[in-house]
Amino acid sequence: MIHITLPDGSVKAFEKNVTPMDVAKSISEGLARNVISASFNGAKVETVTPLNTDGALVLYTWKDDEGKQAFWHSSAHVLAQAIEELYPGAKLTIGPAIENGFYYDVDFGTHSVSEKDFKTIENKMLEIARGKHDFKMRSVTKADALEFYKNNEFKTELIENLEDGSITFCDHSTFTDLCRGGHIPNTGIIKAVKVTSAAGAYWRGDENNPQLTRIYGVSFPKQKELTEYLNLLEEAKKRDHRKLGKELELFTFSQKVGQGLPLWLPKGAALRERLENFLKAAQKKAGYEMVVSPHIGQKELYVTSGHYAKYGEDSFQPIKTPKEDEEFLLKPMNCPHHCEIYKSSQWSYKDLPKRYAEFGTVYRYEQSGELHGLTRVRGFTQDDAHLFCMPDQLDEEFKNVIDLVLYVFGSLGFENFTAQVSVRDPENPDKYIGDIENWEKAEQAIINAAEDKGLNYIVETGEAAFYGPKLDFMVKDALGRRWQLGTIQVDYTLPERFDLTYKGSDNELHRPIMIHRAPFGSMERFVALLLEHTGGNFPIWLMPIQAKILSLSEKYEKYSEKVLNLLENNEIRALVDHRNETIGKKIREAEMQKHPYMLIIGEQEENENKITVRKHGGEDLGMISVEEFANIIKEDISKTLKSF
Amino acid sequence: MIHITLPDGSVKAFEKNVTPMDVAKSISEGLARNVISASFNGAKVETVTPLNTDGALVLYTWKDDEGKQAFWHSSAHVLAQAIEELYPGAKLTIGPAIENGFYYDVDFGTHSVSEKDFKTIENKMLEIARGKHDFKMRSVTKADALEFYKNNEFKTELIENLEDGSITFCDHSTFTDLCRGGHIPNTGIIKAVKVTSAAGAYWRGDENNPQLTRIYGVSFPKQKELTEYLNLLEEAKKRDHRKLGKELELFTFSQKVGQGLPLWLPKGAALRERLENFLKAAQKKAGYEMVVSPHIGQKELYVTSGHYAKYGEDSFQPIKTPKEDEEFLLKPMNCPHHCEIYKSSQWSYKDLPKRYAEFGTVYRYEQSGELHGLTRVRGFTQDDAHLFCMPDQLDEEFKNVIDLVLYVFGSLGFENFTAQVSVRDPENPDKYIGDIENWEKAEQAIINAAEDKGLNYIVETGEAAFYGPKLDFMVKDALGRRWQLGTIQVDYTLPERFDLTYKGSDNELHRPIMIHRAPFGSMERFVALLLEHTGGNFPIWLMPIQAKILSLSEKYEKYSEKVLNLLENNEIRALVDHRNETIGKKIREAEMQKHPYMLIIGEQEENENKITVRKHGGEDLGMISVEEFANIIKEDISKTLKSF
Repeated sequence: MIHITLPDGSVKAFEKNVTPMDVAKSISEGLARNVISASFNGAKVETVTPLNTDGALVLYTWKDDEGKQAFWHSSAHVLAQAIEELYPGAKLTIGPAIENGFYYDVDFGTHSVSEKDFKTIENKMLEIARGKHDFKMRSVTKADALEFYKNNEFKTELIENLEDGSITFCDHSTFTDLCRGGHIPNTGIIKAVKVTSAAGAYWRGDENNPQLTRIYGVSFPKQKELTEYLNLLEEAKKRDHRKLGKELELFTFSQKVGQGLPLWLPKGAALRERLENFLKAAQKKAGYEMVVSPHIGQKELYVTSGHYAKYGEDSFQPIKTPKEDEEFLLKPMNCPHHCEIYKSSQWSYKDLPKRYAEFGTVYRYEQSGELHGLTRVRGFTQDDAHLFCMPDQLDEEFKNVIDLVLYVFGSLGFENFTAQVSVRDPENPDKYIGDIENWEKAEQAIINAAEDKGLNYIVETGEAAFYGPKLDFMVKDALGRRWQLGTIQVDYTLPERFDLTYKGSDNELHRPIMIHRAPFGSMERFVALLLEHTGGNFPIWLMPIQAKILSLSEKYEKYSEKVLNLLENNEIRALVDHRNETIGKKIREAEMQKHPYMLIIGEQEENENKITVRKHGGEDLGMISVEEFANIIKEDISKTLKSF
Repeated sequence: MIHITLPDGSVKAFEKNVTPMDVAKSISEGLARNVISASFNGAKVETVTPLNTDGALVLYTWKDDEGKQAFWHSSAHVLAQAIEELYPGAKLTIGPAIENGFYYDVDFGTHSVSEKDFKTIENKMLEIARGKHDFKMRSVTKADALEFYKNNEFKTELIENLEDGSITFCDHSTFTDLCRGGHIPNTGIIKAVKVTSAAGAYWRGDENNPQLTRIYGVSFPKQKELTEYLNLLEEAKKRDHRKLGKELELFTFSQKVGQGLPLWLPKGAALRERLENFLKAAQKKAGYEMVVSPHIGQKELYVTSGHYAKYGEDSFQPIKTPKEDEEFLLKPMNCPHHCEIYKSSQWSYKDLPKRYAEFGTVYRYEQSGELHGLTRVRGFTQDDAHLFCMPDQLDEEFKNVIDLVLYVFGSLGFENFTAQVSVRDPENPDKYIGDIENWEKAEQAIINAAEDKGLNYIVETGEAAFYGPKLDFMVKDALGRRWQLGTIQVDYTLPERFDLTYKGSDNELHRPIMIHRAPFGSMERFVALLLEHTGGNFPIWLMPIQAKILSLSEKYEKYSEKVLNLLENNEIRALVDHRNETIGKKIREAEMQKHPYMLIIGEQEENENKITVRKHGGEDLGMISVEEFANIIKEDISKTLKSF
């Protein structure tokens, strides 16, 4: 008999060689139907692996990430079999599960596979799946493995790097693959399959190696889930911030200026400015002071901050000058500059906290292959601030920063977010700097603040930075994707390195604590996320144009101007479309531009001194007065934008 | 007989060998008394030089720059004589007139001269001056000159570089100096003398040469003028923007961040932001659109713009990256980026003009010795804009830009300014690019605009940039000093280099014209000038704090807060000084901080629900209500800040 511990802590006795699936069945038939993978003592096992020691078992279903990974890993086997059957002579290489699906890298030889072949592959995969083939793992000797793959130089290379005795194959149906395990019970639960794309990929990612074809796919236990997924994908494509950024004329890139260096077009710059003004106003109320610092700093500044030591060959290199000993770096962060600003005066305990904020543009070199629209760039503007406070003030300051972050999220329509408190690993005290008492205080301050503010948070031990604990916010966007947004970090190092002090009530010099925080993170990334989250339908207070006046003909130009004037007096951002175009075309274009309200003006409207209001998306609010409309829009604004 | 043409165009006949002074006397005794120097056919002559050909004569008095230069040049001779008499063995080197006075570089040998000796030198100079010694020029042979200076290696070096036959000495009193001429009639008109400072200076400015002592002085024909000048100097010291910037906590520098890289402290950043918002609002009305561009650009961008070819070893060097062929430059100007923004769309004639504005921070390497506060820095923010227009629009666009510049000057209290139109030299057409017809149009557009706007302007032929004509504004500050501020330039080159186009009404592609303009020039330089011009007493709309509430004791805290609240509701920027200090101290500090209004609050004020208002400088406006005060301040603001 062996003893199996389940995640709820219960321990059950079983005969030796019981399988995870047997355990599932012993709990309930329903569970057994849904279990698709398992782990034993922390290691992946098959659902049919015989267990013969005591240990902890976790059973996974489709709802778990681990379940999905096993599902997609198994689907990759099915894809490989389909390819082998459809393209004899194609050489399989590697085929892992990924975040959303799986792929297989294949040397198709003289064949070429493209979108027109996807349907055939999908059908073949489904045909195989319907055979309900079990996945069976077996050990093979290195010699046998090499013999099996003697015509496949890729698998041969993989096997040569493995140790004899540790090599396993997986069989299902008539197909065999080199594999470490972690499968679903059988192919039958793969009910829906989609080959999503094919792309070139070098063997082992090295451009000196042969080029392979990477076939991407995704699969689901239900057809409905595939349909939902494809809809989401379609929606994500529509909301791609690079596409929207172009359509809404927000930003552009130029080959000459350089990759990853966005140029903000007028509408984008105005959007940024509104976001900045929004945050500035809240920060002003919260007692922040704006500062301005240069985009470069002498090497010495970064030697002091400790960043220079980490400055590698994969960074923007130092800027030399005519003076040999004078070198500058493009600033990768604003904190060293803010420390020098703090240091320019001698502060007393009565002056603290000092809260310096700056929309500071920083530069970090990213490999060109990693650049992506506004989310991965080489130059970005942080909505940065550094708070210098006394240990006694940390608790309250931290809470105030959380309030500000929550205010930002709330005003911008992010309602779904979680928080992570990263604390030190108490068993590795050497990994961290600063005294233990301060660390405890700081960690407790963060946890208290998270509790106090009712955050949905988890605590991750050992995830703190070496210089202090932190709180990160993860938001879920409208498509369910998670983005890291907003960070609050406690820092004991920089005050030490820059020898920052304040004079305490005891007339002695003390070390302040520093808080780094950025609710948006960066203006670039935030605008990208906002575009994808809202599809360009920003909260109305943020919209570049809140109402577009569409006149039925040029005859109503004068009345349109009058309406525009009235709107502007009500602080509504509006534009007139005076062009001699059909109202249908004007509406289509206004829809494309995401204008929240279209105000249609014709003879009746002019006669009755009113406007006909159409909402973005089509809702008709009828003919009303400009004053009534102004009230509607004010109410709209007040729904998202509260005062801080 | 010879014929002398005078500046008014009149021609007079004189006997050969008539002197400029004789001519002056022939005109009037009064003129003769005031004439202190002259030029003949464009070359400097002595007032006693015999003239023996026909030619054009100009007579200068103290009012002319040329007169002052002769006065100070002659004073340098007197200084040299005084030094020779007071410090036997001191070796004279060179001693020119400068913008405000003169200096002499002297090798004092074992002597050292410092401030305590200045009075002695001044007295000796005045004693010599009172001797009314004439300045007499004479030619000497190189051999005689070298013999005369055989014990002075500096003069010897100078003489060795001169051609025999061109060497002249000047004698006055018992003193002789190597000299090219240009003196006042005699020492007697030097009535007031001040030795202003002494500093180290290397022979010929080369630090490998011996160090000399540079004695600075200034002199005047009247004691009163010296007094006025010294007062001005005193005032300039008080208004030094570096001193005020520190006192008002506007900006600081850090050795670690680097020389010439200002760090804007909260009050300075707020000041900058107010200036920026002021200009933004006017620019918005004028149809400008804000854009945002990065602070670096690929080398290729500057190869295209033509700047890379001029990029020398005395600049910030290119920023290397891990990719060998990928280099970036810190941007020294914003125009290339704005060209790329223009180029990101295809424009039609209906879209023009496009007016892109950006507060763009640029970086230019300056020698550390040339750095000075905020006026010479290595990083500065231009209030930049680039207008892209059709040739037909140039005239109107240029006028609109002038309006904007005049609005900026008017709102900030600069009433005294002149303009310079720089046009091409028609005799050197090869120096310029772009076709002649466009140049003529552009020059005419600028002159028309200057005329039309009633500017006090001069036209300088040959002063245009190679890429187009321009208009520069020079303002005179409160101390009479001239600063270059604001520039508007027409540019045909960059549109060519970047191949910028628009589709004309003829459906063909045409080249737009570009206007560069910056009314402030740079935020750094402008703030420096504004500080020195106003002594920190900015126009009230710009003041960080418009009113400071000074309570007589902590008892009035509640009422003070109420007043503060009322002021804030009236959009008046105010602060309360709650401290337990004497009212005298609070007033002194508020004066130091240049707060325009101090609102004193005590028992009577609280009882009567009023405030006692004291203006900066001391004027007492008595006890009035907050509403009355709000009206006063609003009127104050409206005096300088009009709407654009």
